Amino acid sequence: MADSKIVTAALLIIGNEILSGRTKDANLPFIAGGLGEMGIRLSEVRVVPDVAEEIITAVNALREKYDYLLTTGGIGPTHDDITAECVAAALGRKLIQNPEARRRLEDRWAETGIEMNEARLRMANTPEGATLIDNPVSAAPGFQVENVFVMAGVPKIMQAMFGSLRERLVGGPPLLSRSIVCNLPEGRIAAGLGALQQKYPGVDIGSYPSYAQSGFRVAVVLRHTDSDVLEVAMRDVMALIAELGGEAEQQPV
Amino acid sequence: MADSKIVTAALLIIGNEILSGRTKDANLPFIAGGLGEMGIRLSEVRVVPDVAEEIITAVNALREKYDYLLTTGGIGPTHDDITAECVAAALGRKLIQNPEARRRLEDRWAETGIEMNEARLRMANTPEGATLIDNPVSAAPGFQVENVFVMAGVPKIMQAMFGSLRERLVGGPPLLSRSIVCNLPEGRIAAGLGALQQKYPGVDIGSYPSYAQSGFRVAVVLRHTDSDVLEVAMRDVMALIAELGGEAEQQPV
Repeated sequence: MADSKIVTAALLIIGNEILSGRTKDANLPFIAGGLGEMGIRLSEVRVVPDVAEEIITAVNALREKYDYLLTTGGIGPTHDDITAECVAAALGRKLIQNPEARRRLEDRWAETGIEMNEARLRMANTPEGATLIDNPVSAAPGFQVENVFVMAGVPKIMQAMFGSLRERLVGGPPLLSRSIVCNLPEGRIAAGLGALQQKYPGVDIGSYPSYAQSGFRVAVVLRHTDSDVLEVAMRDVMALIAELGGEAEQQPV
Repeated sequence: MADSKIVTAALLIIGNEILSGRTKDANLPFIAGGLGEMGIRLSEVRVVPDVAEEIITAVNALREKYDYLLTTGGIGPTHDDITAECVAAALGRKLIQNPEARRRLEDRWAETGIEMNEARLRMANTPEGATLIDNPVSAAPGFQVENVFVMAGVPKIMQAMFGSLRERLVGGPPLLSRSIVCNLPEGRIAAGLGALQQKYPGVDIGSYPSYAQSGFRVAVVLRHTDSDVLEVAMRDVMALIAELGGEAEQQPV
């Protein structure tokens, strides 16, 4: 696959609760799938604690290496929510109170009878020059600065925010995939599969064993942007499995 | 908390299937919890694709920064399983066929009637000087070299391997935690909680909102190695919530 055509993204998950195992991250697969549909390849994920130095280092490493950086977590009103100030520091921008963000928060607070206070107003802070990302769930917005997109960590809010990014993220041709499940062990198909990977260097061929009640299974997953190429490679994989005496079935991905 | 006493670890999750969203990682929370019990703090996680350069770079960055590096994924027989060779390259060691690993594989193959082939023998490769990590599920071992612990990605196998690491990983005093759930919004408790974080700088105080059927809830989680310090800080958090008119309940963590 021509590298020049691939649009890449990284995800930075911010929060002690993920690293302690207390909270199981549910955002990675959602974002991976959503980006894939837009033709953007999630190429790296990092999880870092609520420590300014770690967040700043990771933001800079990832925004420079990939076309887009998405972050989740750390945009609430409490002392451990430090994403906005860290992104500002990483980009060398001032942290300001964003007037539009403040207006949205005040409107919500007026509607719901929530009192304004200093902690809550922190949710209006963004790096200078940021554009907001709508939060239809609880008003407090995310924001975009340069190629960095800052979203909430609560899945329901993150998903609503991600929906509005579809207009801002520009992908390449979507990566299509085919999945074939077979009843042969990985060790049987490995040599043939390796040869097919060499034959189709642009097709990303992966092999994933699993243990089901009915015994071991292997899923072979093929990815490419061109459905014709994918189809030809897939037929070769099916033929390989049949040749080795196995049964193959195409699965929905 | 004195930084000198904290033992840290990083986790490197290797595999395209996690980054595509096809496979939901289940290893992070398991490893995070297990390390925590041993007094080792999971301090960073990275997910990288099956690309040698990315794996090697991440292995070197993480093994140098943290006391331990654990990896999952990429140790099977197929062409996309390249963890052993990448760890060898990262550490500047030769990749060898490990005689003990080969013996274990041959024993298993003899028992189960599996034929030996070149692809399967790749599972006996380790960096020179590695010690094996037992795999009671499917024989193919993981390995340790220096402070790097290489494990399978399939959760059942990874968990069995992780069990045997308890004798090799040396932790500090375990991080204890208390969790308090209250019915006040984050914005109400934020100022007081921030003040308590300043009062107890060594206690890691986190605030996690969630939406339950009964309405919003906030969990306040406190972590420290000393249960007395934790108890005192926790009572202050309970008092704060009561003062603000909320109801607080201690929850199992």
